[in-house]
Amino acid sequence: MQAALQLAHHAIGLSDPNPRVGCVIVDSAGRLLGQGHTQAAGGPHAEVMALQDAEARGEDVRAATAYVTLEPCAHHGRTPPCCDALVRAGLQRVVVALEDPNPLVAGQGLARLRAAGIDVEVGPCAAEAAELNIGFLTRMRTGRPFVRLKWAASLDGRTAHPDGHSQWITGPAAREDTQRWRRRASALLTGIGTARADNPRLNVRLPIAKQPLRVLLDARLDLSPDANLLHAPGALRVFHGLEADAQRAQSLRDAGAQLESMALDAQGRLPVMPVLAQLGALGMNEVHVEAGARLNGSFFEANAIDEVLLYVAPRILGAGLPCLETLRPSPLDDAGRWHWMDVHPVGDDLRLRLRPRR
Amino acid sequence: MQAALQLAHHAIGLSDPNPRVGCVIVDSAGRLLGQGHTQAAGGPHAEVMALQDAEARGEDVRAATAYVTLEPCAHHGRTPPCCDALVRAGLQRVVVALEDPNPLVAGQGLARLRAAGIDVEVGPCAAEAAELNIGFLTRMRTGRPFVRLKWAASLDGRTAHPDGHSQWITGPAAREDTQRWRRRASALLTGIGTARADNPRLNVRLPIAKQPLRVLLDARLDLSPDANLLHAPGALRVFHGLEADAQRAQSLRDAGAQLESMALDAQGRLPVMPVLAQLGALGMNEVHVEAGARLNGSFFEANAIDEVLLYVAPRILGAGLPCLETLRPSPLDDAGRWHWMDVHPVGDDLRLRLRPRR
Repeated sequence: MQAALQLAHHAIGLSDPNPRVGCVIVDSAGRLLGQGHTQAAGGPHAEVMALQDAEARGEDVRAATAYVTLEPCAHHGRTPPCCDALVRAGLQRVVVALEDPNPLVAGQGLARLRAAGIDVEVGPCAAEAAELNIGFLTRMRTGRPFVRLKWAASLDGRTAHPDGHSQWITGPAAREDTQRWRRRASALLTGIGTARADNPRLNVRLPIAKQPLRVLLDARLDLSPDANLLHAPGALRVFHGLEADAQRAQSLRDAGAQLESMALDAQGRLPVMPVLAQLGALGMNEVHVEAGARLNGSFFEANAIDEVLLYVAPRILGAGLPCLETLRPSPLDDAGRWHWMDVHPVGDDLRLRLRPRR
Repeated sequence: MQAALQLAHHAIGLSDPNPRVGCVIVDSAGRLLGQGHTQAAGGPHAEVMALQDAEARGEDVRAATAYVTLEPCAHHGRTPPCCDALVRAGLQRVVVALEDPNPLVAGQGLARLRAAGIDVEVGPCAAEAAELNIGFLTRMRTGRPFVRLKWAASLDGRTAHPDGHSQWITGPAAREDTQRWRRRASALLTGIGTARADNPRLNVRLPIAKQPLRVLLDARLDLSPDANLLHAPGALRVFHGLEADAQRAQSLRDAGAQLESMALDAQGRLPVMPVLAQLGALGMNEVHVEAGARLNGSFFEANAIDEVLLYVAPRILGAGLPCLETLRPSPLDDAGRWHWMDVHPVGDDLRLRLRPRR
């Protein structure tokens, strides 16, 4: 299963909106017969890739065991059900890390394998498999993506110098590490404040099959048509309020942006949860947010942060912007404490990763 | 030497303003003949304690080796020179972790041992010995104490809830850990802002021979005579401006405080470096600062922070006070990066310790 998980990692940046799945087929002596991972949407899933690989090698998979990191699908999507392919191939045993919560699958894949007389086991490496697909699993369960909020701060909690510069708080290793987190996201999201202050491209500068969708929250369509966001590779989706200026909308559309309007909340802000629901409907699994204090605060208020990814730089600024600001601060009770995922040195900075206790 | 260092730790909270020194005397077979550590000021030093211990055990220390964590003193202070005691005892060899930078010693102790024909070695465990006496060494070299700034913050860099509460950001383990750092300090220092907002006692609640000096920076003598600072065990020294109200001064003196006046700086603040020089003159080795953003900022501006001790709580407040604020923020250059000492989980919080790169 560890080998299948390794393969599943190759589907990062490739398989969205489908889950990252790996499959390894071995004979009773443990010899590798075939292997594969999910391809781009519309392409073959991991199980079919592994069966094709075995066939190409001239291997007989009857009486073999398949290790799959997620329950084989049982429905006709853009490809036929994987469980049927496994049955047809005559496999004797299928070991699955994790059940698929997709309502179109949800146990039916396992049931069909068992009905065909295949020996089915579920559970090995379930935690790792779930972690790799936390975005897909979150979307299947809730309809919205998994939201990871990234920020970088000094020891005194400042994310930007008073002069507005924020790009050089952390060192090169932390910035490279951030690229790896961006790479596994379906969408990279920011707000108009950051877009104007930093003029980011918000793309992945590592090798990737397809750039994530870039998402901008820009209630009044203040984005300049010259902004880097409009001139970097990858699609840009701009959420804005219903009252935004039509001419501005047209000029952004002309510059290549996809626009989506939405009713603003009482404070004149784009409402976080409806935006996330919309991104979920678009098949976005993990959303990586790099924004300023105000938008970060909106995500916090909406209880929409699934993970904080925080780089702490070993420096003191003494002034500057906070990383998150809300009008509704948390009480200092135990319920407000988050759960540590990991703490790692990254170059000369420190990376903290936490999730809310739910 | 490790055993001598262990003993030296017992001098924490006891030996100030003298250094924390341990001494172990062993025979050529490595058998323990005597041991000791520095006592309270005016009492015997480590070497004399170890010699007395050996005598009490009926051991012959001639031809023995003494391991001492700091160069034996060569001057008459409140006690006679330790190097003479070692010479008189007829020791064959003395191993010293670290030279004493005290200008009254500075190599003379070693020279006198060598002149008496004793075999002298310097260097084993020098780093650990220096760390234990970093306050004493700093004072000997610069005339001022080693300054450790402690603060506790949320992930979003807030040290206090907007309602002013700050005492429950971190958990009980971090608060207990803080007590251990307070315990090794010669002085605990805060500002009038914190004194008024939190009404702290600022004392050590662990077993300790003598409470550290408590120091308050209170330019206009705004401290209430009812404040906990005036009614907790240990001496309180209040620094104030020359123009402070004489009646207030008298009422604080009546309540037991020692007052010390000083010219304020152009911003009406007590100047950090002269206060530290004064504390150095009073024999303070390590000063532990627990203050608010403004006083922390003054220490930062004065380049007077030798160590930051930062507890990060796994919570997001979303509003509240910053931990450090100055009118002169640092540029975002590499020179502004600090040096990591250690990162440790403490209960459910994370402790970061850093020193400036100098």
